[in-house]
Amino acid sequence: MSVQPLQSQPAPSVNALSAPLVESLVADAAALRLGVRRLADGATLVDAGIRVPGGLEAGRRIAEICLGGLGRVSLLSDGAGDWPLGVHVHTAQPVLACLASQYAGWSLAHGEGRGAFHALGSGPGRALARKEPLFAELGYADAAERTCLVLETDREPPPELVARIARDCGVAPGGLTLILTPTRSLAGTVQVVARVLEVALHKAHELGFPLPAVVDGAGAAPLPPPAPDFLTAMGRTNDAILFGGRVQLYVDGDEEAAGELAERLPSSASRDYGRPFAEVFRDYDHDFFRIDPLLFSPAQVLVSVLASGRTHRGGALAPELLAASFGGGA
Amino acid sequence: MSVQPLQSQPAPSVNALSAPLVESLVADAAALRLGVRRLADGATLVDAGIRVPGGLEAGRRIAEICLGGLGRVSLLSDGAGDWPLGVHVHTAQPVLACLASQYAGWSLAHGEGRGAFHALGSGPGRALARKEPLFAELGYADAAERTCLVLETDREPPPELVARIARDCGVAPGGLTLILTPTRSLAGTVQVVARVLEVALHKAHELGFPLPAVVDGAGAAPLPPPAPDFLTAMGRTNDAILFGGRVQLYVDGDEEAAGELAERLPSSASRDYGRPFAEVFRDYDHDFFRIDPLLFSPAQVLVSVLASGRTHRGGALAPELLAASFGGGA
Amino acid sequence: MSVQPLQSQPAPSVNALSAPLVESLVADAAALRLGVRRLADGATLVDAGIRVPGGLEAGRRIAEICLGGLGRVSLLSDGAGDWPLGVHVHTAQPVLACLASQYAGWSLAHGEGRGAFHALGSGPGRALARKEPLFAELGYADAAERTCLVLETDREPPPELVARIARDCGVAPGGLTLILTPTRSLAGTVQVVARVLEVALHKAHELGFPLPAVVDGAGAAPLPPPAPDFLTAMGRTNDAILFGGRVQLYVDGDEEAAGELAERLPSSASRDYGRPFAEVFRDYDHDFFRIDPLLFSPAQVLVSVLASGRTHRGGALAPELLAASFGGGA
Repeated sequence: MSVQPLQSQPAPSVNALSAPLVESLVADAAALRLGVRRLADGATLVDAGIRVPGGLEAGRRIAEICLGGLGRVSLLSDGAGDWPLGVHVHTAQPVLACLASQYAGWSLAHGEGRGAFHALGSGPGRALARKEPLFAELGYADAAERTCLVLETDREPPPELVARIARDCGVAPGGLTLILTPTRSLAGTVQVVARVLEVALHKAHELGFPLPAVVDGAGAAPLPPPAPDFLTAMGRTNDAILFGGRVQLYVDGDEEAAGELAERLPSSASRDYGRPFAEVFRDYDHDFFRIDPLLFSPAQVLVSVLASGRTHRGGALAPELLAASFGGGA
Repeated sequence: MSVQPLQSQPAPSVNALSAPLVESLVADAAALRLGVRRLADGATLVDAGIRVPGGLEAGRRIAEICLGGLGRVSLLSDGAGDWPLGVHVHTAQPVLACLASQYAGWSLAHGEGRGAFHALGSGPGRALARKEPLFAELGYADAAERTCLVLETDREPPPELVARIARDCGVAPGGLTLILTPTRSLAGTVQVVARVLEVALHKAHELGFPLPAVVDGAGAAPLPPPAPDFLTAMGRTNDAILFGGRVQLYVDGDEEAAGELAERLPSSASRDYGRPFAEVFRDYDHDFFRIDPLLFSPAQVLVSVLASGRTHRGGALAPELLAASFGGGA
Repeated sequence: MSVQPLQSQPAPSVNALSAPLVESLVADAAALRLGVRRLADGATLVDAGIRVPGGLEAGRRIAEICLGGLGRVSLLSDGAGDWPLGVHVHTAQPVLACLASQYAGWSLAHGEGRGAFHALGSGPGRALARKEPLFAELGYADAAERTCLVLETDREPPPELVARIARDCGVAPGGLTLILTPTRSLAGTVQVVARVLEVALHKAHELGFPLPAVVDGAGAAPLPPPAPDFLTAMGRTNDAILFGGRVQLYVDGDEEAAGELAERLPSSASRDYGRPFAEVFRDYDHDFFRIDPLLFSPAQVLVSVLASGRTHRGGALAPELLAASFGGGA
């Protein structure tokens, strides 16, 4: 297909597209059981599961905010398999939605020692701050007066950090909304599993597959039961994707690269594949950086080449590993 | 998960949230093949299948009104099984959406003898009139100047009853919309089957499971073909849930209570389980009150405990009983 | 069910209902990677895959425009089978949405010889121009000052043709939007496969089944990978429906007619069924008119009779034929 590369298209603003979603999330806070608090400097904190219950629908809407207003996330009872609830994701522009906005790539920290605050920032604010080298590669920068960042955390960030995030994004504190989603909350579970497509794109990038060649894509993964502690929750949400995630990508470019992508992209291509994530993590003495970074990817992948019309496949769903992770098979 | 109990959250208004849905249902009446009639006192009657065809999409939107604007209902061709069309439901707040609004708990009657009018009222108007003891338990009361009630009936209610409903809801007649959905209509079929989650919550309550402990949930059930007469229609819509419904609940509280809930909640735990509902009803001489009230529940249930991360399972789908009820297996 | 025939209901305007969808498609052109160009006479051309990538979501929204604002199209990763992505369609009024708007029945041509432009026009503009005898049968005419037509083409239509379309629709050129979707594009693939229900209605009509008797319906089909050339793309999008499409219709009228419809409606009832469409086309020397017109229909059909509550079935999914067509089974 004779298409212009992605970069030469006019780029939409992930902040402009997601701003109405953030506004309606805050307006519907009571229905969604979210806590909303205005800080002294005017920044807005949305609690999606720390001191309030939040819920699956809140997580679904937060996931659409993470995607910069460029994607749709659906929660459906698929009925097949042991875990009927599934999270379905597709976007108007997967690379922009997933990597320039949804990817939790902004490392946020404040303080030292035991009281230190650490969280990964996700969402459209990243495309304003552009702290990550990825943005130079994406060739994408956004401009906005209001922005939002999603923090996977079970603590409120210190006010100093909030102020710094606003500065880094180039917005007044009153223009900043931070959404806090504990990994072990219902909302957090949905918003992490909704990363099934993002994880595929991120690994494709790690494997050296050219991002502008990824034209479109969609994905889905089963929703794990929330876990009582952070480690189990992190394990289950990862395993939902590693053992139950399926993604189809539509790519430009040559056949061989696509075939290799389909072969290397599934989680089963990683040396650390084969056990629940929490076990892998434990066996590496909780040292995240010893885990094979190529583990993080969907179970099953289809790569359809637009130029040839061929589809390459890799990986497979692993329901027995899902059952081992989710704690309660049929 | 350390959450505040549901009651201490600010409660959303099921009437305020559903009012725009009612307004757009009336505005789209031609597209949805609904009849709209203004009574002398200003009340609005929406005919969703008595003298007009209505349809599946009308039923889907009426179901979202029943859920007090707190839920999403999707109609999808799932493809698996003999009955491809499925109704999927999830809500921001299942207890409030399903029990304070969707449950058909308001018994409406007018007149005596053969000409008497009887119908069960469902939807956000219930939370204004609060005629049922359930509302004291839910600790929920709504306030609104406009409201809506859905009546499962194939007759127009007498004007005196309409006026009384308005009075009971504390609204002027001009602020009241009544939506009439015959059980045997397309719209009626969808809106009844969309009760798959509500039925689970209602039975959980009957079983003594504490409602505030139900934090979230979702469900789905196959869509039966509409039936030509009320009894068959009532049988099929019940059977869609009894033999094809599946629900996942997320609960707070202790493990044992959740395990017991998963065991007792499915329809198969009832003494009257095992035959199409219409047969059960006939064998009890059409005396509804002789039927085991615990029969009304989904086929398959998952109960995930937030505190432990464990999932308890009960029941199973029964496609052969669905086929017997729906009249035309593969 | 005692319903008034469709014709006697007030008919909605497919142009009025789809106008906001056209407007937001143009407004979101950057996000959807669409090209938008204003011609000298004020008409708007939307390029959905000729010189721009477009995408699946653009196709989904174009399909909802084709349905005259009367339908919903969803893209979901169903997970079952070799081709996980599925297109789901249901409408408020299938006959009106599919036949008075979505059907690609308006033959548009300009010029002669090799440079001649030919395309089939689909969408709400058809109900203004009413060039097809079908409209007399449907008894439907729309009136509007703005309209839209979807052209399955990989070329821009000549300005003379655009002007003629506006005249035929009775709108000023500034009120006309033409959306161009190449068959081999991502958007084109989605919008063609979203015709799974329309194809069933069109064939029902060909078989002499009375259209007013079709009260409701829904359908789904797998999404094929886009193909590099027009013929393969045409083949795959047809095969998605012929071998993977499933439709349920709800009909008024007599049992025998419904039973016969279920028997004759599936693609397998055609003499040309059994091979990928591209092969059939090649074996007829690329002469479209030699192909059995009754080939174009879904693989599997359920016809539920409202008067009796009975469901008639015909056809079956043919995953092995899908694999042969889509080029890359599991």
